[in-house]
Amino acid sequence: MQKTERTKIRRVPSRGSYDRSVINQILDAHFLCHVAFIYDNYPVVIPTLYGRQGDYLYLHGATSSRLMKSLGKGVNMSLSVTLVDGFVLARSAFHHSMNYRSVVLFGQGSRIPEEEKYRSLKIISEHILPGRWEEVREPNTKELKATHLVSIPIREASAKIRTGPPIDEASDYDLDVWAGVIPLKLIATYPEADPGLKDGVSVTGVLKQLLDKYA
Amino acid sequence: MQKTERTKIRRVPSRGSYDRSVINQILDAHFLCHVAFIYDNYPVVIPTLYGRQGDYLYLHGATSSRLMKSLGKGVNMSLSVTLVDGFVLARSAFHHSMNYRSVVLFGQGSRIPEEEKYRSLKIISEHILPGRWEEVREPNTKELKATHLVSIPIREASAKIRTGPPIDEASDYDLDVWAGVIPLKLIATYPEADPGLKDGVSVTGVLKQLLDKYA
Repeated sequence: MQKTERTKIRRVPSRGSYDRSVINQILDAHFLCHVAFIYDNYPVVIPTLYGRQGDYLYLHGATSSRLMKSLGKGVNMSLSVTLVDGFVLARSAFHHSMNYRSVVLFGQGSRIPEEEKYRSLKIISEHILPGRWEEVREPNTKELKATHLVSIPIREASAKIRTGPPIDEASDYDLDVWAGVIPLKLIATYPEADPGLKDGVSVTGVLKQLLDKYA
Repeated sequence: MQKTERTKIRRVPSRGSYDRSVINQILDAHFLCHVAFIYDNYPVVIPTLYGRQGDYLYLHGATSSRLMKSLGKGVNMSLSVTLVDGFVLARSAFHHSMNYRSVVLFGQGSRIPEEEKYRSLKIISEHILPGRWEEVREPNTKELKATHLVSIPIREASAKIRTGPPIDEASDYDLDVWAGVIPLKLIATYPEADPGLKDGVSVTGVLKQLLDKYA
């Protein structure tokens, strides 16, 4: 991907990447993004879910939402996806760090027309919960009307990744201080069935795959 | 906390809170925020670590960072902290949701003067890794000079929380679809010692507490 003034990684540029496959891997590893836009001359940041297909991200929300209304108008926006992979414990306070994978993207969204809403919602659903779409009741016309969707091209973006152990000052390696990485991971714990669950309905293969993904 | 035009929760207002203790609990449960600001007339969102003490958040970064330079000038900014607590699986595609706790904050940062940097860095360190500060080499004058810090007042903020099972259409409860919550949790896995770790240095009580916190 073309590096731009905006996406250029200035701090520790060796950790930056403009490779589309690296960017897509990070986007595919998560489901929550933070979107920034300007509203009443003020920067606003809002967390929301997303799905990716090809070179586009898809977001959804209620038609009344400030975020969706703004993005649907094609305002300038920025979006970040961040995965925290570990606390990096150095021998000095200064060299403490995080292992992480993040993407920052710039661009404008486009409102998804009524006839493409079904397809776009399915992309978001399949991104977050693969296979689930086929198990549940599909959205009806009223529900689709109440949902606003936007697509965002993945055109101007960069990734930043830190991995590996701490990097200490040479003179600090002799200190009696434990140093290393405490890995972090988002996991799923035991499913909690809805109190109103119909008798005899149990967890499916689709849900088991989801639990495996977050094991 | 005073509700403002900006912080007013419009979508599902019953999930919103302006209670300082609710907001602080969410801020204290995490360490990563996403900060939005306007740079060259464009909204930018950047992930970064934070610490809280009293009614202030503290951020740090390199003196050369675009984020820290902008915030240090007191530009308008917005910040969000989001914890994902579970996938909410409904019987219909439309009613799928997430359980989460989030804070969105508006305001301006202030640059921390040289003589208060040590104290502010310690606040961030103690927020993320309680007790670690006393185990490691303190920052020296050169390291403090290379670090830029800002404080942000927690003055205009709101929390939004979703908990509990899915809420389906009455007519859908009879469908043969598993519904419920798949809880999500950020956990620490087994510590990876630095390959250069000095012989005989082992994990301390401080690190064991950290592992317990993310068990």
